[in-house]
Amino acid sequence: MVVSDPRPIGVFDSGVGGLTVARAIIDLLPHEPLLYVGDSARFPYGSQPVERIRRYALEIAQYLVRRDVKLLVIACNSIEVSAIGDIAVGANIPVVGVVNPGARAAIRVTRNEIVGVIGTEATIATGAYQRAMGSAVSLHAAACPAFVDHVERGDTSSSELRVLAHGYLEPLVKAGIDTLVLGCTHYPLLSGLLQLELGPDVVLVSSAEETAKDVYGELVSRDLLASADGRPAHEFVTTGDPARFQHLAEVFLGPEVRDLGVQQVTVEGAWS
Amino acid sequence: MVVSDPRPIGVFDSGVGGLTVARAIIDLLPHEPLLYVGDSARFPYGSQPVERIRRYALEIAQYLVRRDVKLLVIACNSIEVSAIGDIAVGANIPVVGVVNPGARAAIRVTRNEIVGVIGTEATIATGAYQRAMGSAVSLHAAACPAFVDHVERGDTSSSELRVLAHGYLEPLVKAGIDTLVLGCTHYPLLSGLLQLELGPDVVLVSSAEETAKDVYGELVSRDLLASADGRPAHEFVTTGDPARFQHLAEVFLGPEVRDLGVQQVTVEGAWS
Repeated sequence: MVVSDPRPIGVFDSGVGGLTVARAIIDLLPHEPLLYVGDSARFPYGSQPVERIRRYALEIAQYLVRRDVKLLVIACNSIEVSAIGDIAVGANIPVVGVVNPGARAAIRVTRNEIVGVIGTEATIATGAYQRAMGSAVSLHAAACPAFVDHVERGDTSSSELRVLAHGYLEPLVKAGIDTLVLGCTHYPLLSGLLQLELGPDVVLVSSAEETAKDVYGELVSRDLLASADGRPAHEFVTTGDPARFQHLAEVFLGPEVRDLGVQQVTVEGAWS
Repeated sequence: MVVSDPRPIGVFDSGVGGLTVARAIIDLLPHEPLLYVGDSARFPYGSQPVERIRRYALEIAQYLVRRDVKLLVIACNSIEVSAIGDIAVGANIPVVGVVNPGARAAIRVTRNEIVGVIGTEATIATGAYQRAMGSAVSLHAAACPAFVDHVERGDTSSSELRVLAHGYLEPLVKAGIDTLVLGCTHYPLLSGLLQLELGPDVVLVSSAEETAKDVYGELVSRDLLASADGRPAHEFVTTGDPARFQHLAEVFLGPEVRDLGVQQVTVEGAWS
């Protein structure tokens, strides 16, 4: 007898960037319902102190556990590097993050063992990618704080952005990287720009894609797949303005996305 | 003075699989209008004779040139391997295919120089990937004719499909591949399944992603970018049933996609 698990996959982020991860999961697992939480009211996390990010993240994780999700996906590098340990201890369900899938793929892809990673200031400051990759590679990290704003404005190709990217990436190019990990869920939308700037010999690793494959593997190996009958109802909620979330969701999920029916929720409260 | 080119990018496929490429282009170039043609009336191409595929492909390319697109994207491996030479000669605009971007990425990613490629029977039979990769790698190819149907039914995880994948991939695993090129635009939706089957040490290369990055590079380097003002109007047309195309489009573009307003068109006619 095939057992199916109708509970949703919980995906959360400080805002809308995690939608790149959500969409990758929907692609690979079209029958799985998703419950996505974007903490837009407190966005961006990337420049905030780690202690505060941890508190916010625990509140959202708790909200999702209360909503009975079967798997937690931390679709935000800044949250994961700040709080994955505490979340994994507090939640009694499997937790998948974005750092390890990306780091693991980079280790496999590099040929010269010189790898770059770009992300928000918080992600880069914690050194989480260095820890995840250990001494297997020489890692060069660069914080790219201005990228998120450009992506959210739908700008992936302005000359201003290209100048910015050139400046951010220059030290990585000089270091001789042959692989670049996109250590922020916004960055897959910049992969055309990044590839053009770095040249064809540098391989880009998208942690969104890698994470979705990990989610697939977790559900299959733990027998947590939903039934293949019918279409799942996804739910998108935000702590911020639903209209603004809908607008940004169209940047991330595509301009053909219809009204997602985004609800506003409150997630504050202590970890039980 | 910045010049902008408002003409659409023409993207075509034998059906809906090329929508994975279209979506990757929309992600990287959100201001570019797309004109997508799916030749669903004559789908699937994969098992048809090369001569016939070439004739169909030239008809669609001509239709797109008449519609004044600025760049042609052949978002279908079977079409490209059959007809890219003739299309490039007949069209006076840049042409981007899916084979070279994927082949090039695989050559960069492999560490043991043993690469696998999977695709339709037509794609594999032409040996186009072998030609594209030259003698740089030892290439092992497998036709996976049943995958397309599963993907279009929204099945990415049934036990029947997993058994099928195991059989298709077994010779590639035995050959010791460390890299697998997804040589069909439907296959990115199977990357969870394929990664689980192949294990974490094999790197998957999506030609859809790589192609979108090439399109980005072509538009920037040839100064063909559209203006960054406003939102582009995409157009999706099919030679087949619009309702069926819309249904399948939701599999490929995501379940949140609203009515695309798909129009039915006729593309038959001689190359001018």
